[in-house]
Amino acid sequence: MLRSMPNKKPLIEQTFAALADPTRRAVIRALSEGDATVSRLAAPFDMALPSFTQHLGVLEDAGLIVSRREGRSRVCSLNPSALRNAEEWMASQRRQWESRLDRLEAHIAKTRTEKSDD
Amino acid sequence: MLRSMPNKKPLIEQTFAALADPTRRAVIRALSEGDATVSRLAAPFDMALPSFTQHLGVLEDAGLIVSRREGRSRVCSLNPSALRNAEEWMASQRRQWESRLDRLEAHIAKTRTEKSDD
Repeated sequence: MLRSMPNKKPLIEQTFAALADPTRRAVIRALSEGDATVSRLAAPFDMALPSFTQHLGVLEDAGLIVSRREGRSRVCSLNPSALRNAEEWMASQRRQWESRLDRLEAHIAKTRTEKSDD
Repeated sequence: MLRSMPNKKPLIEQTFAALADPTRRAVIRALSEGDATVSRLAAPFDMALPSFTQHLGVLEDAGLIVSRREGRSRVCSLNPSALRNAEEWMASQRRQWESRLDRLEAHIAKTRTEKSDD
């Protein structure tokens, strides 16, 4: 179990907080290329294993990775749905803003046409 | 100026850290519906104005919002490019993972066909 203490924060909050750390983003990048054991993931980092495992726990709590035991190793996989949820949250704010801008532009164009009709 | 101290962290890190807070996400949601003055943005929050302005500074440093002075007010706008950058970071990890899975699936299908040809 990589999971840390129970966390009552909304999952999207945990996802953003988890991605606000360079070690954790590097783990996500590594796992995007395929599953990896904890020790293989930890190898590039000059970090004590317990600290590294804590980072993995944060990623697992945030739903960004899942892990399973295979023999004597723990293998981690990316869980793309948490990435997709966070992407959708951001895209939805952005699209709302963009569609408002489109309506504003249409309104200005309409007003301009009406004026030139005078 | 809402900006806080200079921050040497990569912008993507600041974007994720900025979005890991419920007040700041609520500001982004509010601004997705249109520009708003600082005092109008602050109104729904039971928070001292200096603390609220600090949240806006974090959002501005992360490139998520821009602000301008209009008479005696400061008006904030959403800056969709920071959202788009963070979305693209996540989508790129997710797509790499998904395309690897597609290749794996194709490989299994091919192996299965070759076996049944035996």
